[in-house]
Amino acid sequence: MTHRIAVIPGDGIGKEVMPEGVRALKAAAERFGIDLELEPFGFASCDYYAEHGQMLPDDWFEILEKFDAIFYGAVGWPETVPDHISLWGSLLQLRRRFDQYINLRPCRLLPGIQSPLAGRKPGDIDFYVVRENTEGEYSSVGGKMFEGTEREIVIQETVMTRHGTDRVLKFAYELAQSRPRKKLTSATKSNGIAITMPWWDERVSEMSGHYPDVTVDQFHIDILTANFVMHPDWFDVVVASNLFGDILSDLGPACTGTIGVAPSANINPEGTFPSLFEPVHGSAPDIAGKGIANPIGQIWSAAMMLEHLGYQEAAGAIVAAFEEVLSEGDVTLLTPDVGGHGTTESLGLAIAERI
Amino acid sequence: MTHRIAVIPGDGIGKEVMPEGVRALKAAAERFGIDLELEPFGFASCDYYAEHGQMLPDDWFEILEKFDAIFYGAVGWPETVPDHISLWGSLLQLRRRFDQYINLRPCRLLPGIQSPLAGRKPGDIDFYVVRENTEGEYSSVGGKMFEGTEREIVIQETVMTRHGTDRVLKFAYELAQSRPRKKLTSATKSNGIAITMPWWDERVSEMSGHYPDVTVDQFHIDILTANFVMHPDWFDVVVASNLFGDILSDLGPACTGTIGVAPSANINPEGTFPSLFEPVHGSAPDIAGKGIANPIGQIWSAAMMLEHLGYQEAAGAIVAAFEEVLSEGDVTLLTPDVGGHGTTESLGLAIAERI
Ligand SMILES: CC(C)[C@H](C(=O)O)[C@@H](O)C(=O)O
Ligand SMILES: CC(C)[C@H](C(=O)O)[C@@H](O)C(=O)O
Repeated sequence: MTHRIAVIPGDGIGKEVMPEGVRALKAAAERFGIDLELEPFGFASCDYYAEHGQMLPDDWFEILEKFDAIFYGAVGWPETVPDHISLWGSLLQLRRRFDQYINLRPCRLLPGIQSPLAGRKPGDIDFYVVRENTEGEYSSVGGKMFEGTEREIVIQETVMTRHGTDRVLKFAYELAQSRPRKKLTSATKSNGIAITMPWWDERVSEMSGHYPDVTVDQFHIDILTANFVMHPDWFDVVVASNLFGDILSDLGPACTGTIGVAPSANINPEGTFPSLFEPVHGSAPDIAGKGIANPIGQIWSAAMMLEHLGYQEAAGAIVAAFEEVLSEGDVTLLTPDVGGHGTTESLGLAIAERI
Repeated sequence: MTHRIAVIPGDGIGKEVMPEGVRALKAAAERFGIDLELEPFGFASCDYYAEHGQMLPDDWFEILEKFDAIFYGAVGWPETVPDHISLWGSLLQLRRRFDQYINLRPCRLLPGIQSPLAGRKPGDIDFYVVRENTEGEYSSVGGKMFEGTEREIVIQETVMTRHGTDRVLKFAYELAQSRPRKKLTSATKSNGIAITMPWWDERVSEMSGHYPDVTVDQFHIDILTANFVMHPDWFDVVVASNLFGDILSDLGPACTGTIGVAPSANINPEGTFPSLFEPVHGSAPDIAGKGIANPIGQIWSAAMMLEHLGYQEAAGAIVAAFEEVLSEGDVTLLTPDVGGHGTTESLGLAIAERI
């Protein structure tokens, strides 16, 4: 059985970490006899925009829907294209049109990486952020009135649906159920955001009846971010709206030392459409072109993709490989964000060798 | 000249830290010959709600508007009153009706307090969060459709105005201008929240022309929270929308060891209405009743209030007093959140003595 994978590097460091992601993927495929067909695409990048005046070809949906998965780098180059145009013209379209309503982001302190939090060691931080990925605060509904005048008013709507909320809660409850601690934390802000968030809380509490073995707690997003720093060991599975999940899944990895290693899976659980796998980090214009971006976020995303395609063992081998390289702590191989003076390629090669 | 101060303890630990805030305030007033008239109020509490079915008396506006300032504890007791009812029925009303459009929150690593961030010492973290405090994501506009059915849709609008945005930016630019580093960081999320936030960015960049000596940068809120943990030394003045400011001003203090010490000023800069001074922390039902809440957030808020009333020196004396007590590190006086086994009262008394 051949699995067709669309490979979209995007912009900035996306183009630098993707070759290492592909290298790891191919190494795992070879070792475990997995038949992968990788097809690269230059669209969903600001280079493509410069040529075509849009981020994606008109028939992107038809092109991509035939793939079994999408392996994605990072998009955005604000110097040439404003972020809201590049992102709403690419990634955010894909997530929505392919109904990838789960954004799953593991947050784990890896061996060999120094946490910025004092005294935290591997094992202390190990949780998932389950982020709603298609609606909520990321809406395109709203507009301006009295534009360009002193009376200007700008409105943007947060739109939540029971359909959209319950399915992400279900996924989060089931994930919590599958883990030893069986603990679910819901991110809310029902004291201040007084229409959508109290309703979110109601959905959480209504669904808790179906999962009596899961312990549920909730925190307002402000104190929750504080607790990520003060008590990262409290968390097991954290479920959040689109925006809150976005914030928590950058903050969580920062607490584990670098967002450079964090992966994510944008999942359409029904398999009606391809799922998309990408590092949590962005295109990072500040370090792009230097060849020093950490490729582990991309490589770990490859592991999540293989797991999604049913290759648990191959996924495990990739994770074991980068954990091994990190544990060894050879500073000539490691990228600067994890204390080394190696390059994207040196780290990627070392990992591929172990696989 | 007599200054009339309304004193509103609220709920939970608000009732425990307020007496220490008042003690510090009185000590400073006595030492510096400031004529304060303190009037306590039991409303804006869930106890009041239990009796009256509402958080505030009907004539709260007329009652409070005559005061020179409001000294506020913390409100909320979710066991008896849902948070959105208690908060929208009290604090959030006051902020809006008294047009306290600036929420100013210093974030500083104090001597004697252990930061959860490895290797950070006093001086490394010292910035302000300037939070828009009346509009934005905290709107009461929106509603539900198909309520109670599978098709349920819930909408809440974020409303930003040029009037509301420019005035908070102006305050933030001027604050940055007054500080040695003259650096302003704007919190955005214009890649995902594609109507309001790109517009916010435009206002920031349009106003930068008036402050050529201020260096401005911007970060999307997700990576900004990560940078609070990884590089708290980067920040000087951070300006943010209502929600983003709320998040950053809990996260920032967490990075300085405890949110128990963080103060805030809800300011109406024109002085048309009284300003309100309160700790950043909430009513903390989990530790309420134990007498172990840190009173410094409340005491530091008293200092901000005195500064607002024009008593720079008295404000400085309060800050010097709690810094001294913290530096000495007597664990029999300090509350548990800062590594001691003292009480709210022991710490409050020690601070008042130094004043
Ligand atoms: C209690 C709550 C409504 C409030 C807010 O979100 O503004 C609090 O978190 C704060 O930061 O003052
Ligand atoms: C690039 C941006 C639109 C995106 C998001 O906010 O979803 C990113 O931050 C992420 O977390 O995948």
